[in-house]
Amino acid sequence: MPAVPFSTLADLRRRLDQGELTHEALVQAALERAASPAAAQVFTRLYADAALAAARHADAAQAAGVRLGLLAGLPVTIKDLYDVAGETTLAGSVIRLGATPAEADAPAVQRLRAAGAAILGKTAMTEFAFSGVGINPHHGTPANPAWPGAGLPGVAPRIPGGSSSGAAVSVALGIAVVALGSDTGGSIRIPAALCGLVGFKSTQARTPRTGTFELARSLDTVCAMTRSVADGIAVDAGIADAPLAVEPRPLDGVRLALPGTLMLDALEPAVAVAFERALTALSAAGARIIELPLTELGEIGTLNAPGGFSAVEAFAVHSAYFAAERHRFDPRVAQRIALGEPVTAAQYIALQDRRHDWIGRTGRALAGFDAIVSPTVPILAPEIAALEASDEASDQAFFRANGLLLRNTFVANYLDGCAFSLPCQAPGEAPVGLMLTAPGGHDARLAGVALAVEAALKAVLEPARAA
Amino acid sequence: MPAVPFSTLADLRRRLDQGELTHEALVQAALERAASPAAAQVFTRLYADAALAAARHADAAQAAGVRLGLLAGLPVTIKDLYDVAGETTLAGSVIRLGATPAEADAPAVQRLRAAGAAILGKTAMTEFAFSGVGINPHHGTPANPAWPGAGLPGVAPRIPGGSSSGAAVSVALGIAVVALGSDTGGSIRIPAALCGLVGFKSTQARTPRTGTFELARSLDTVCAMTRSVADGIAVDAGIADAPLAVEPRPLDGVRLALPGTLMLDALEPAVAVAFERALTALSAAGARIIELPLTELGEIGTLNAPGGFSAVEAFAVHSAYFAAERHRFDPRVAQRIALGEPVTAAQYIALQDRRHDWIGRTGRALAGFDAIVSPTVPILAPEIAALEASDEASDQAFFRANGLLLRNTFVANYLDGCAFSLPCQAPGEAPVGLMLTAPGGHDARLAGVALAVEAALKAVLEPARAA
Repeated sequence: MPAVPFSTLADLRRRLDQGELTHEALVQAALERAASPAAAQVFTRLYADAALAAARHADAAQAAGVRLGLLAGLPVTIKDLYDVAGETTLAGSVIRLGATPAEADAPAVQRLRAAGAAILGKTAMTEFAFSGVGINPHHGTPANPAWPGAGLPGVAPRIPGGSSSGAAVSVALGIAVVALGSDTGGSIRIPAALCGLVGFKSTQARTPRTGTFELARSLDTVCAMTRSVADGIAVDAGIADAPLAVEPRPLDGVRLALPGTLMLDALEPAVAVAFERALTALSAAGARIIELPLTELGEIGTLNAPGGFSAVEAFAVHSAYFAAERHRFDPRVAQRIALGEPVTAAQYIALQDRRHDWIGRTGRALAGFDAIVSPTVPILAPEIAALEASDEASDQAFFRANGLLLRNTFVANYLDGCAFSLPCQAPGEAPVGLMLTAPGGHDARLAGVALAVEAALKAVLEPARAA
Repeated sequence: MPAVPFSTLADLRRRLDQGELTHEALVQAALERAASPAAAQVFTRLYADAALAAARHADAAQAAGVRLGLLAGLPVTIKDLYDVAGETTLAGSVIRLGATPAEADAPAVQRLRAAGAAILGKTAMTEFAFSGVGINPHHGTPANPAWPGAGLPGVAPRIPGGSSSGAAVSVALGIAVVALGSDTGGSIRIPAALCGLVGFKSTQARTPRTGTFELARSLDTVCAMTRSVADGIAVDAGIADAPLAVEPRPLDGVRLALPGTLMLDALEPAVAVAFERALTALSAAGARIIELPLTELGEIGTLNAPGGFSAVEAFAVHSAYFAAERHRFDPRVAQRIALGEPVTAAQYIALQDRRHDWIGRTGRALAGFDAIVSPTVPILAPEIAALEASDEASDQAFFRANGLLLRNTFVANYLDGCAFSLPCQAPGEAPVGLMLTAPGGHDARLAGVALAVEAALKAVLEPARAA
């Protein structure tokens, strides 16, 4: 048996209820795999004893006739930007070594704990969550386990995507069922897409952000990666202030906007093929795919200058020591943070106003649609080696890849919206994500659509399994 | 009969219902007084025909048996920073002459109109609402009509307070029953206190701010001046997104914090006498007045630097033309706006973080209290002449007075809180305001306390009228 069967919360719960598995055995196996060489760069901390205790408690409660919640006793990981009481939150940096330990668990961690989850450990990430690639020069970069042939001789390791790199790999390796991550520009959805998982970036206001190491306060979203849309909805209910009222709906009549701007540009051929095939499947299942110019998407680059929210707000986080300690930052992260330094308060306020106006206009353009449909990421996962050298060619390749990785996902962040990324590759293919993006607060409707899209894609891509 | 009897909405409605008055006669008389020399500097625009039409409509509706809302057909003024469709919002400036006319009424104006109010006109204000004094070098400064002997020979004109100067004078002169103003640092409560009115600065989030000329987005509050606390609650219900659920309560058992820091410093003797007398009356009515150090109040000056929210956010509003057009600003306003120019985005974000932390600490210090009790303003209304000359002595006197005027009121704005100012002078005395300040969102509880405080003060200060 793999550490955790590659399955969903709901399926595991059913098998646990039927006595096929115990929580303790599941978590024990998960911890063994977490300690294996394949997972060497996934965790920054392990909580073996606490996770086993949660699992044993779930077994005992089940034996006593308690009807357990979905998360109880099941293996979950948390990204290393969430506070855990008594520990220093590193957020992928070395500069934070020795920083004051957190006084309390972050609310999302607290809520997962209260739901009985077996929290296995903290996962590796891009320094300060500031890139979509997932490379971390201090702690190394976990390879993407979902790439066809990953780990075999002659198969070059691919990036997992970031910034929630370890989070994605912890689920893709079959260690965890759920990985708590975060999404400021795509940090949940990019690794979900590249590692063949579901990523749900909810509307920012759904989940409290206290106790998380801040990247960009206007954009940071507390959210998770899972193996299914239903799991994504269940985890959201566990960490958000209130659960979504999701109504399952048929795909028939769902209106999806196919954007004429930005999101379909320069797709890598394999991505274009998988995306087209997915659209065909969705149309066949009754979805109306409607081309929409959405020229608003072409404005983001200009409106979000100079610096942009991420650079400006990240610089504010680090300004007290940035000049003195810059040499201890990942140079690529430092380079982006530095863009925020010269920005004035008036420019920042103008940045907010332009975004506010854009959100209004884009929301109006999307009225009458259930979501934008697009590939999550226009490229397949690049090779790690080409992006991690410290030379100029590698820097250029890194920033080019990073720009492409974030391009489509950032739309939902800038929109203060919500989005799901779902796998749309066929078995044996490199992972490709299909993304559904909607304005802020439309999470429940989007989740209903995502359930229907997931079912339609499964029927085509995994006909045997779906039947 | 005076233009509008010096009465409340509730009292006027009763008299209208009984046929003692008609709406048309009331509004006709209000318009006549608005055109009188005493009101020469109160209005920047008059809407005589529209106001009369609203009054006649109210009369007709009443005659047809419609039970009218409190505001229907009654004279109301609006501060000249609210958009009225088709007109340029001047906000007390000359720089805005020729600016694009507003496309729509501001929501507060729209809601007053929908409630049937007879909107008499737009009222004069400090340029861009940026001072608590009420002096406007472009349009002149309406004298304070509530100062004892105002208008008599040998009685020097006193300031009305600002920035909602014309708003306060429109009510104090008996032209309007309600004046829509705004409060960023005290702009409702200062003129209310100096002109003998009630000012209710609600929690910012209660009322939409679209269509208002922005001073400082973190602080600006849409609110009004009235003749009674009940009227203040009624008008708030008319302009806010949802009415307050106010429960009248006895003063017995109400816990009021008497601040050991800042708010009782350096009171002008007449203010100290009136305030002490008021406290005695409140104690006698059962209120518990408890000294509380509230050292947090002493931190505001340091925390709100450099520039402070008002300067930083005001500079953002005007940055596009500030350098080129500075000579057309009120020099004192320009001087304060200029403080915001050098502030960086990171400093501004730090300003927000320090405020957020302070709000939390101050809220905890106030747990267990219904409100802070203090004088609204530590001084009586100064003479206009001493503050309006364009020389250095006058500048110094102006900034000193402005600092004192805003000192106590700014606490509620910085707290993102709510506050009532109530008159506490005896008949014949110069107006003095008593202020109740509470954390944000406690508006309903505060309003219940304010009703009880108002009743207790009336019983002492106007025994004949109260009986």
